[in-house]
Amino acid sequence: MHLYFSNAKRLTPIACWYNLSMTNAPFTYELLATDATTGARAGVFHTPHGDIPTPMFMPVGTQATVKALDPDDLHAMPAPVILSNTYHLALRPGPEVIAQAGGLHRFMAWDGAILTDSGGFQVFSLGPQRTVDDDGVTFRSLHDGSIHRFTPERVIEIEEMLGADIIMPLDECLALPATADDLRRALDRTHRWLERAVAAKRRPDQALFGIVQGGTDPALRREGARFVGSLGLPGVALGGLSVGEDKPSMYATVATTTPHCPADRPRYLMGVGSPEDLWECVARGIDLFDCVLPARVARHGGLYTPAGRVSIKGAKWRDHHAPLDPTCDCATCRRFTAAYLHHLHRVGELLWHRLATTHNLHFILRQMRVMRAAILDGTFADKLGAFREAYRPASTERAAAQRAKFAQQRGG
Amino acid sequence: MHLYFSNAKRLTPIACWYNLSMTNAPFTYELLATDATTGARAGVFHTPHGDIPTPMFMPVGTQATVKALDPDDLHAMPAPVILSNTYHLALRPGPEVIAQAGGLHRFMAWDGAILTDSGGFQVFSLGPQRTVDDDGVTFRSLHDGSIHRFTPERVIEIEEMLGADIIMPLDECLALPATADDLRRALDRTHRWLERAVAAKRRPDQALFGIVQGGTDPALRREGARFVGSLGLPGVALGGLSVGEDKPSMYATVATTTPHCPADRPRYLMGVGSPEDLWECVARGIDLFDCVLPARVARHGGLYTPAGRVSIKGAKWRDHHAPLDPTCDCATCRRFTAAYLHHLHRVGELLWHRLATTHNLHFILRQMRVMRAAILDGTFADKLGAFREAYRPASTERAAAQRAKFAQQRGG
Repeated sequence: MHLYFSNAKRLTPIACWYNLSMTNAPFTYELLATDATTGARAGVFHTPHGDIPTPMFMPVGTQATVKALDPDDLHAMPAPVILSNTYHLALRPGPEVIAQAGGLHRFMAWDGAILTDSGGFQVFSLGPQRTVDDDGVTFRSLHDGSIHRFTPERVIEIEEMLGADIIMPLDECLALPATADDLRRALDRTHRWLERAVAAKRRPDQALFGIVQGGTDPALRREGARFVGSLGLPGVALGGLSVGEDKPSMYATVATTTPHCPADRPRYLMGVGSPEDLWECVARGIDLFDCVLPARVARHGGLYTPAGRVSIKGAKWRDHHAPLDPTCDCATCRRFTAAYLHHLHRVGELLWHRLATTHNLHFILRQMRVMRAAILDGTFADKLGAFREAYRPASTERAAAQRAKFAQQRGG
Repeated sequence: MHLYFSNAKRLTPIACWYNLSMTNAPFTYELLATDATTGARAGVFHTPHGDIPTPMFMPVGTQATVKALDPDDLHAMPAPVILSNTYHLALRPGPEVIAQAGGLHRFMAWDGAILTDSGGFQVFSLGPQRTVDDDGVTFRSLHDGSIHRFTPERVIEIEEMLGADIIMPLDECLALPATADDLRRALDRTHRWLERAVAAKRRPDQALFGIVQGGTDPALRREGARFVGSLGLPGVALGGLSVGEDKPSMYATVATTTPHCPADRPRYLMGVGSPEDLWECVARGIDLFDCVLPARVARHGGLYTPAGRVSIKGAKWRDHHAPLDPTCDCATCRRFTAAYLHHLHRVGELLWHRLATTHNLHFILRQMRVMRAAILDGTFADKLGAFREAYRPASTERAAAQRAKFAQQRGG
C-alpha cells in the first residue's frame, strides 16, 4: 500500500477521527463453523480496516512498527491485523503526536486493522517502579524517570487518540503463582475498571474488548467470563496467562473458560504463543492471539519449520544451498537459501532480522490458515493430531529458561 | 526478482560458472555524450547482468548484503550495480561457500550487476595486523586471529569463485599524506601486481579493471593512468583517494588524472563519496563511484535533502507529519512522514535503518540520473551551478571529525 501525502496538511485530533471510517461500522463476528470434536471455531471479525478471518494471530508492533518489517512485508504474508502497545506509545512518541498524525494507522502507514493493548501488562511488569490502588496505577518511565498515571479513563482517552480498531481496557495482570486473595482482588478490580472503561469510551469506530482475569482458578475464570459476557462487548479477552504457569495449566484454564464466553463474540488469548500453544488453544475455543515470540525467536537465530524450531547458527546450514523449509512460500524462503541466512546471522547483518521475522510470522500465519481451513472442512482433529505428531516443541526446560531470560524484556 | 529453487540442487563451482551468462558478453562502454564545458561524460557500460547507465553510483554490500535492504528494495531505486567486498567475503563465509551456492549473484539473490573490490584497501587499513612484500600481503583475521595471504593471483582466484561482473586487482593503497618514496614504491608494486592479475585471470564473463595509484602527485597519477590504459582493460579505477587528503586536493587529482585515461573506457573513483563529491568528480570525468557513506550517514540519523544533510534527531521533526523531502519519490518518502522516521530513530527500531538507507541511496541515485540527463541535454554546467547553490555540504571540520570517528570501521 502507498499513501501519498498532500502537501504537509496537518490534521487535528478531532479532524482525524472523522477522517477515519466513521461509518458506524459494526464490529460483527460471524461464527462460520465449530469443530465437532474440539472447541475449535472458524469465523470472521469485521472491522473498519478490513475483515479478520479467525482463528488469527496478530503480529506485535510494540512501538508502531513490527520489528524490521514494513507494511508491504505484512500485507505480503498476509497479516490482516497487528497489535500495538498503549504503554510504549504513551511514553514515546506520546499520544498527541500520533493523534496529530491522524492516528496510528496513518502514523505507521498501515491500512490493515490494529489492536492496542491497554498497557496493563507492561505496567504491572514494572514491579517496584509502580504502585496500584483502586483508582489506577502510578509508574515511573524507564526512559526519563518521569511519573505517569494510568486510570481506566486515561487509558481509553489515550487509545482514542491512537485510534486502533480494537482497544483493550486497563486490567490488573498478576504474575503466577499468586495467592487466592490476590487473584480475587485483581479480578474484582479488573471488573470495576472495565465498567469505568465502558463508561469512558466515546468513539463508535473502535471496539472495546473485556478482559477475563482469575489466574488458573476455574471458578474465578468462570465468574470473569460471565461478567465480561454480561456487558455485551464485541469481544472477550483472556488475560493473565503465559505469565509463569506451566503449559498444561494454561491449556486447562483456557478449556474451562471459553465455554462460559459468549459464542457469538471472538475470544482473544493475550500474549500467546508458540506454534503448539496456538494449535492447542484454538482446539480449546480461542479465536485471536498475539505474541512477540516469533520476532524474538528470530532475533536469537531461531526459525520455525514444520518439524520444530531450528537454530540457524548450526554449522550444517553453512553450505545448505536450498531454502530452510522447501515447503515454505514466504518471501524469505522463496528467494534466499539457508546458507545465506546462516551467513547473515553469523556476520550480524540487519537483513537477517527482516528475513527471519518474515519467515517466522509467515509460518505462524500459515498455521492459522491451515487450522481455519481444517475447521471449515471438518478435519481439524486430524490436522491437530498430525501437527502434534510432526512438530517437536522447544522442551519445557528450555522454554522455562528462555522465559526467565526474557522476563525483563517483556512487552518489548 | 524472485528465484525459485529447484529441490535442493547443489551446483559445483565449475558448473555454476557456465550457468552464468557465458555468452562471451563483451564489457563494452558506449560514450554517449561529453559535456562541452566540463569533463562530464554520459554513457552505458554493458555487463552480463544488465546495462549500467553512467555516471552511476554503486551501493555497497560489503558482506553480500546492502545493509538493511533486500534485492527488491535495490531494484525499486533502481540500482543497476552494487559493490561487494572480497576481503570480507574471503573471511566469511569464505569463497568456497559462495562458489557452491552458484556465485555471489545466486548467494544473495541479486540479478543485477556486481563489482567486487580486491580487498586491498581493507588489508592495507589493518596497519600492524599485516605485512606487505613484493609478492603480496599477509594479514591476521580480525574474527579469529587466523593468518591469511593475499597475492594478486589469489585475489583473482577468490574473485572468480565469487563471480562478480567487474573485479578489481590487488593494489597497494596508502593513507595520505605519504612520502614520495612510498608513493613511488606503491605505484610500481600496484603495476606489477596488475600485470600478474591480468595473467592469472581466466573467466571471460568478468571484467578486470586496472587501478591507478599515485597519491596527489600529478606526475605519478599521469604515469599510472597511462600504464593502466596501455593494458587495454575494460575499465580504469582511481584508487588511493578519499584517504586523508582534503577535498580540493582530491578534486585536483581527479582532474589531472582523467585526461590521461582512455576515453573509451569507464573511469571508476573508488570509495567516493558525498553528494558534492559525486557532482564535482563527474564534472572532472568520473563515470562510476561507490561509497559506504549513504548507509553510514543513515545509521547515525542523517538524511540527505536537496538543501543538504539533516539529522532526524532534531526536535523539529517530532511532529512534522509530512515527508522529510516532499520532492522525493523514494519508497520511504512516498509512504512515511518525518515524524514517523524521528520516532523510529529515537526508539532504536530496526525499520529506521531500512527506511533511512533507502532514502539516502535513492537520493544519491537520483543525483546520478539528474547529472546524466543534464550531460545528455547539454545543461550539466547549469545544473552543477544550481547544485552548488542549493546544497550545503557538511562542513570540512565536521567531515574531518567524522572521518576520524569512522576510521577504524572503514570497509564496514
